[in-house]
Order: sequence, then structure tokens, then C-alpha cells
Amino acid sequence: MTTTDDDLCFRTALDLSRLLRTRELSARELLEAHLARIERVNPAVNAIVTLVADRAREAAERADERTAAGEELGPLHGLPIAHKDTHNTAGIRTTHGSPLADGVPDQDDLLIERIRAAGAITIGKTNVPEFGAGSHTFNPIFGATHNPYDLGRSAGGSSGGAAAALASGMIPIADGSDTGGSLRNPASFCNVVGLRPSPGRVPGWPAATAWSTLNVRGPLARTVADAALLLSAVAGPDARSPIALEEPGARFARPLDRDLTGLRVAWSPDLGGLVPVEPEVAAAVESAVEVFGDLGCVVERACPDLTEAEEVFRTLRASMFEVAFGTLMDRHPDGLKRTIRENTEEGRKLSGPDVARAEVLHTQLYHRVREFFGRYDVLLLPVSQVLPFDVGIEYPTEVAGVAMDDYLDWMRSAYLISSTGSPALSVPAGFTPGGLPVGLQIVGPHRADFAVLQVGHAFEQATGHWRRRPAGLG
Amino acid sequence: MTTTDDDLCFRTALDLSRLLRTRELSARELLEAHLARIERVNPAVNAIVTLVADRAREAAERADERTAAGEELGPLHGLPIAHKDTHNTAGIRTTHGSPLADGVPDQDDLLIERIRAAGAITIGKTNVPEFGAGSHTFNPIFGATHNPYDLGRSAGGSSGGAAAALASGMIPIADGSDTGGSLRNPASFCNVVGLRPSPGRVPGWPAATAWSTLNVRGPLARTVADAALLLSAVAGPDARSPIALEEPGARFARPLDRDLTGLRVAWSPDLGGLVPVEPEVAAAVESAVEVFGDLGCVVERACPDLTEAEEVFRTLRASMFEVAFGTLMDRHPDGLKRTIRENTEEGRKLSGPDVARAEVLHTQLYHRVREFFGRYDVLLLPVSQVLPFDVGIEYPTEVAGVAMDDYLDWMRSAYLISSTGSPALSVPAGFTPGGLPVGLQIVGPHRADFAVLQVGHAFEQATGHWRRRPAGLG
Repeated sequence: MTTTDDDLCFRTALDLSRLLRTRELSARELLEAHLARIERVNPAVNAIVTLVADRAREAAERADERTAAGEELGPLHGLPIAHKDTHNTAGIRTTHGSPLADGVPDQDDLLIERIRAAGAITIGKTNVPEFGAGSHTFNPIFGATHNPYDLGRSAGGSSGGAAAALASGMIPIADGSDTGGSLRNPASFCNVVGLRPSPGRVPGWPAATAWSTLNVRGPLARTVADAALLLSAVAGPDARSPIALEEPGARFARPLDRDLTGLRVAWSPDLGGLVPVEPEVAAAVESAVEVFGDLGCVVERACPDLTEAEEVFRTLRASMFEVAFGTLMDRHPDGLKRTIRENTEEGRKLSGPDVARAEVLHTQLYHRVREFFGRYDVLLLPVSQVLPFDVGIEYPTEVAGVAMDDYLDWMRSAYLISSTGSPALSVPAGFTPGGLPVGLQIVGPHRADFAVLQVGHAFEQATGHWRRRPAGLG
Repeated sequence: MTTTDDDLCFRTALDLSRLLRTRELSARELLEAHLARIERVNPAVNAIVTLVADRAREAAERADERTAAGEELGPLHGLPIAHKDTHNTAGIRTTHGSPLADGVPDQDDLLIERIRAAGAITIGKTNVPEFGAGSHTFNPIFGATHNPYDLGRSAGGSSGGAAAALASGMIPIADGSDTGGSLRNPASFCNVVGLRPSPGRVPGWPAATAWSTLNVRGPLARTVADAALLLSAVAGPDARSPIALEEPGARFARPLDRDLTGLRVAWSPDLGGLVPVEPEVAAAVESAVEVFGDLGCVVERACPDLTEAEEVFRTLRASMFEVAFGTLMDRHPDGLKRTIRENTEEGRKLSGPDVARAEVLHTQLYHRVREFFGRYDVLLLPVSQVLPFDVGIEYPTEVAGVAMDDYLDWMRSAYLISSTGSPALSVPAGFTPGGLPVGLQIVGPHRADFAVLQVGHAFEQATGHWRRRPAGLG
């Protein structure tokens, strides 16, 4: 392994894509560099939990043949990727982080099907919490994923393996999903980019309740433009999702450059006083927000009233859990972690009017946020209320001196936004004095995924020098 | 009043639109012809329950001024219209068919706002059942709407006033809405066209639960092309509805002509054996289906399994009722009709898992229907299981010898389709030997509203000679 190979592993996906197209680089070389890095780095990080090196080598060979033959190349041609282990991959072990779901699917999820059709090279699967529940990645099959910036700390979750793999140069792009922050928290903890797209932007199939808007699929990458590249390959309509948005995915491949002069930026350090935030997080986000002033934006402290977002999220999520885990819990009472069992029981205890009330509040919240975005173009928030925490605990039981009731409480800054239906980007916002990454959450109006990416890109361009690779991974 | 004026009242909206644009006809003349016809015909039919003649005259005058000034004219320029009385109209009495909701709104529903912006002339409101519940139009404020083809019979509902007004030449286009058949049954009963569009096609605002897909807004007219014209003005995205489809409404103004040769047509006389159908309805629909063979279609008897559509519809509708009427019922226990109270009570008794199960079945049903439409382009069904029934009864208690449990049972052929999420068109399919209209229901794949209109248009072109105006209205 040479330094050059390692450098290759930290290039942007867009750069790599260009090198592959101009044949300055072969898919096989690129793959080998990543496989070597995985071999060296993954034992400490535990981000990639299933590796399909041989299969990937064959795919890379075929990719290079296509390049040589002058065939049309997909937007992700030749780029190595690993898929979140809650996403079914045909012929590749998929565990969902639980022995109860450990198997080899015979069908790809729609998301995976699109990634493969776009020419990416699947090298394996990324680690997740048990059934993706909670925002700290550990499960009884593979254990915990470690934060590349401090191996004693959490990588976040549920797309924790994906974020840690990106941060440590094991892959240039990764897919994830987000109900209450699962694309955003790990991005924040690992100094990478994660986009929670609008519901329907990336059609979700299979899905037990296809009209539900809480759980979405989306991209992670090391840069906003790379996340947009992946989004361009996985967005766009498909009849298998009745809520799929009609805008073609290719529209996200447009250049993201945009002058932010005059942009009306709202920012809130604590979601309008609803959440406690650790001081070091608050300080980092505050510095990040100053950049928007430098970029010519009109920055004001403001936040829509998100009070009811709590009930909306908790109720609709509990109902989802009842659907997803009710039968399984009855069959295997000891096979699910306590937190999943509790949320499932909460779902069972809901009345029909409880669920209906959540939908009414969901609607009122949507309109309140819609009206807010009549006055502001974006809303800036911390992604996470906490810094990456001890990898050995289940969840933080206290944030800035405030006790947390359960494993979701500390994720409120992310999940309250899920209830709004807005697209939300987690973009690196620098480090604490102690060297831990902090993420900035950029929330945009209904379906304004592209605008959110543009704003994130401009911020990233202005703060690129803040970035640093994780040290000491060998 | 001359014969010529009456003829004007039965011209298509597209014809009238052309005459208005070429100034062969003024909006004022057109309005007066319709006002005269309303004065003559409405007392017997009771379709228009609030008339705003003076306001309409002013609007028509302004419309003619715009024409004279060579200004740009909206797609509905100068066309008289009356709005369903469950749709709020700023400054115009809106009752929702209930003394509990009788008032003068200060804001238009989004649908009405678009119709006005498109240049239509509001002449009043059309009758509805109490709060639009059920498919027979009667309420304690205005009484019942009578079928123009037999004044002793029902006009259907809940867009019953709209359909009866169209059928009797009082307006050329009308707006309606449909949860369980409210755009389709009255169209069928009154020999006019009603389209239940895809959810989100016509953005619904205000809406207590904005993500719900059961209730949709849509157009009624005397021809399919006129319904498409109205749709073109009211479809298209708006951020006030989070599920609004992105396709611009103007796309529905394209010509509907299409050669149906080779079209794969499925048809079922009884929704796969799920519903009893009166023999005269079945016979009329069977004759209508033969036309598709003549048009070169490949016609087969087939139907997706719609068994679970019953639970989906009943559960989700009851939940809607609990939201809409729960508080009102507690405040005014005697102010709501028995059927609404019962459905509201049903909604109250639902458990959270009942609602979640309905959403799971909803999803399974969606996919079953989606796969069905991989094999067929459209599905033909009767709109209604019954002929227009005695205007004096609340609902048919028996269909083809089968007892009906409640006021919804006889509407099953319409409401089972609501559960699928598919667009569905009700198009006139001729008359029984006794002279009562029968409608054909054309159901298409997910979001294929335009294709459904095309197929309906081709059928209508082939069977235009079946049409006849209601006789004996004076």
C-alpha cells in the first residue's frame, strides 16, 4: 500500500469518476486501493461488516471492459460502494443487524437496484444498529462501529457503518436511510455529508406502509457534490413507490454552484428552545453560522414552532414499529433489544384517534414550517445535540445537564425535523478543540432538496480548509 | 328564452371557450343564457342551492372587458361554473349541507382559487349531502337534488348538485370531490363525466390530514374533453399540499385523441365477484364494453383481487370521520345525521394497530393493482351497482336481491377503487330501456390520469350517438 493509494481513497467521487472516464484510472485499480484500505483500517473501525471482494473484482473487470468498449457509462460507473445492511442486496448477506433477519435476499431493494444500474461496484455492507433502531451503531452480530476520529466513540447511526467507512476512506459514496436522523447524525459524528431527502425523492421499495413519509432513503458522501451525484442516480419516479416524486434524478447532477448573496438564513442553536445542546456543539455551530454572514446571507435567529413535532414523530414511529416488529416480538420475545420492544409496545397501545391526532398535528406542523419558509430560504441547526459519545454506552443519558428519558431523546434535534417533511442536510462544520467533528444541519422548504444541496455546497466551499482526515488509523 | 339559448347551454365547454375567444359570444350572453335556464329548470332539479347572479354578471362584464382589451385569457375564461357546497368560497355562502357549517367563508379553497384564476365565472354553489357523506344528495338545509332524467330519483352524490346541474344544462363544467365515489356515482346517475384523479393531482387545501389519499378533488363535465379542460386548470403542484403531484396542469389540455388498437382492456362486471350489480346496470355496461372490441382493443375478463380494499376504505374513512366530526358530534349530538355519527363512533373505536393494519393492506393492495396494470392498460367496471334510486329514500337497502348493511354498501363498486389509489373515470354508457343513465368506470394505473381520459374520450367518440338530453324539464 502506497501513500498514493491512500490518497486515491480520499479523492472525491466526482474526481474518481472523471479519472475513470478518461481512463487515467481503472475500476479495478480503484477497487484494489479501497480493498487494501479496508483491510488495513476496517478492523479498528468495524464499518464494513460483509465484504464481497471477489464479486467486486468481477464487477470492476466488467466495468473496465465497458469503458474499453466505449459503451455508455452510468453516473456511478466504477465507483466502489457499500450498502447499508438494512437494505436488501440480492445474493449478498443482509442482516439488518439482527440474528432474526440474517439471510441472503434474492432481490435488491429498489435503491440498490438503481445504484447497481448506475454502474457502482458493490464491495459489501455497512454496519447498522439492530434493525436500524436508534442512532448508535451496535448489534449482536457485528458489534459496534467505531468513530474514525476517536475509536473510543460512537460513529452515530443508524447509517453509522456508512459514515465511518466514508470518513476512513473505505468507500467514496454510501447509501443510507433516515427516520429520526439516521443519515444526519452519523454524518455529523464522522465529518461527512448526509442528506435526508424529501419523502418520495428516493422511492422506497419494499416498504410495509408505502405512503408513510417518516422513513426515507438517501446519500452519504465526503462532499456535498458527491452526495448530489449519488442522489442523481437514486432519485426519480418509480411506480413501486406510490409517493415517488416525479422529478428525474438526473436533475441533481447539475452544478451546485450558487451565489448566496441575499439568502435569507434563519438559525437556531436549540430548535427554538426545545432541546439542550452541549456547549462545544453549540460553539462549533455558531462559528459555522458566521460563515453565512461572510457569504452575504442575511442571517437571523429564528425557528418555526416545532413543539408538536415531538408527538408527531413519537406516535408515527411507534405505529411503524408495531407494524414492523409486532409479530416478530411475539414469536421471539427475547430476540429484540429492549428499546425496540418498548417502542413496539407503545405502538400497540396507541388508539386510532391517537394516530389520527398525530396526522392532524403533522399537517399543522407542515403548514407552520411552510409559512416559515415564506420568510426564510433555509434554517440552520445543530445536527446533533451531543458530540460523538462513548462507544460502549447505549445512548447518552444526559445532555448539557438535562437528563434524557430514553434512547431517542438525545436525537431530538434531528427527529423533530423529520416530522416537518423538509429535506435536511448534515454537512461538516469543523471540529471541537478536542478534535471531534460537529455537523451543521441545513433544512430547506418542501421538496427543495436541490437548494439545500446548493447551500451546503457553498458552505463547504467556504470551509473546506476546516476539513481533516482522521489520524492514527494506520 | 329561445331555443338557441337552450342549445347554448348544452354546448361543450371547449366549444363555448372557442366562441368566447373569437368574440362570437360574450361572457355576459353566455351567463344570461345559463341564468335563464337555471331559473327555469332548477326549481324542479334543486341542483344549484346558492345563486350569485349579480356577482356573476359583474365578473362576466369584467371578462368581456379583458377579451376586448386583448388581454391574456385563462383556460376557463368566461365559462360559468358552480362550486360544490363542501368547497369554501370566499364571500359566498357555503353550507357543507349542514346548519352546523353554514356560513360565509373569507377564503377560497385552493381548488376554487385556481378555477377563478383561470377565468371561470362563479354563478353559485351545488348541492351536497350533509357534510358530503354518502352518495345521495339531500340535506336539512336545501333538501334533495333530483335526477334530471327522472325527477323522482336520486342524482347520486356527493357531487350530486354538480352532476344534475351539468346534465340539465345549468353549467358547462363543475368541480367536485370523491372519497368513495362522489365524483363518479353522480356522473353515472346523471349521464355526465366525472374523474376521480390520482391523489395529489388536484392539490387539496385546506385538509385536516394533508397526507391522506382517500379524498380527492376533481372535475365533472358533460364530455371527457371538457373534464380534461377543467382538470388542466386545477391540477399541478402547490406547496399547500405536501402530496401535490409535480406535473403541470397544462399537460391535461393536450388533445385526447388516441388510437386504442391493441389496448389491453380488462373488464369485470362485479369487481371479481365482490359486489352484486342490478341486471340492467350489468347489461348496459356489458354493451359498453363491446365497444372496446370494436375499437380494436384486446378485451379480457379480469380483475385484481380487491378483497382487502373493503377494510382499507372502511378503516381509513372512519378515521377521517373521527377527525372531521368527533368534536362537532360531542358539541351537537343531535346536529349530525345518524350515518355520520355512526362512522365517527367507528373511528373512535379503532385501535392504532387497526389503522396501521389498514395502511399495510393499503400498500399490499396498491402493489397487487400495480402488477395487474403490468398486464392490462385499463380496467372497466360498472361505476354504480344500482340505477338511480327513489329520491325519497336514504339509500338502497337491497341490490340485486342482496341486502345492504348500511348507506355505503351499495357504493362498493366505486369505493373499492378509491382504496387502490388509481385514477377512475365515470363516463356515460347509455341508458336502460326505461331511460335511466348508466355509467362505465374506467380505471387506470398509478397516476395515469391522462391515459384514462384518452380512453374515455375514445369511448365517448364512438358512443356519442347514445347520448340524449333529459326530457321534460321545460
